Amino acid sequence: MQKLEHIGIAVKSLTQSVALFEALLNTHCYKTEMVETEKVNTAFLKIGDTKVELLESLQPEGVISKFIEHRGEGIHHIAFEVADIFEEVKRLENEGFSFINTTPHRGADNKLVCFLMPKTTNGVLVELCQEIQS
Amino acid sequence: MQKLEHIGIAVKSLTQSVALFEALLNTHCYKTEMVETEKVNTAFLKIGDTKVELLESLQPEGVISKFIEHRGEGIHHIAFEVADIFEEVKRLENEGFSFINTTPHRGADNKLVCFLMPKTTNGVLVELCQEIQS
Repeated sequence: MQKLEHIGIAVKSLTQSVALFEALLNTHCYKTEMVETEKVNTAFLKIGDTKVELLESLQPEGVISKFIEHRGEGIHHIAFEVADIFEEVKRLENEGFSFINTTPHRGADNKLVCFLMPKTTNGVLVELCQEIQS
Repeated sequence: MQKLEHIGIAVKSLTQSVALFEALLNTHCYKTEMVETEKVNTAFLKIGDTKVELLESLQPEGVISKFIEHRGEGIHHIAFEVADIFEEVKRLENEGFSFINTTPHRGADNKLVCFLMPKTTNGVLVELCQEIQS
């Protein structure tokens, strides 16, 4: 684990929440991206060395919609940058952690991502991410 | 806002969760601190430029106990470091944000802290914090 790469926040309306977080963090959203595989629209803001990723569902049955339905808007996950995601998955499995997916898939922001099972991480949905080298 | 200073995570047992997050983040807890005013025991781990703050309630009626009772263990708040907390409270009030406390009080880790009302911040409990100069 190298650093906290971003905090993912589930929101109902990306437009409204981008304006809200721009005012809160006193900065501008620098990127939006639709991630078809995850069925989300995303928007990114930088704060120091970390990012805030706002997540809006593309469909009523998506994971973000269901999250908001059950718990309301709020923090959905936190993501840690790793140097080698395959090695980090192995290390964490050896430590007894369980994964939602152990094979990294392509997520937002040009990253390979894996998610741990929140029941093994104190209820926190933890993402590992590694920049895809072009 | 300068950077994400820490993520606060509500846990039932500090002992168990310190071990869990040490394994997860592959680092050691470098400090524990009892914060009487907040009725919590805290433990800190560093990851890059940010900290993870684990929060265990000192009493059954404390805010952390109630949070866990309602939502289970998980992320309780996120804290942003600011250069001048008094000025930042003013700026955010002018932007239309509401605060739980507008007068900073002493929190954990030698900080002055204020909390925003989550209903004005997309359901996220946001803390502002500023290091107390000795």
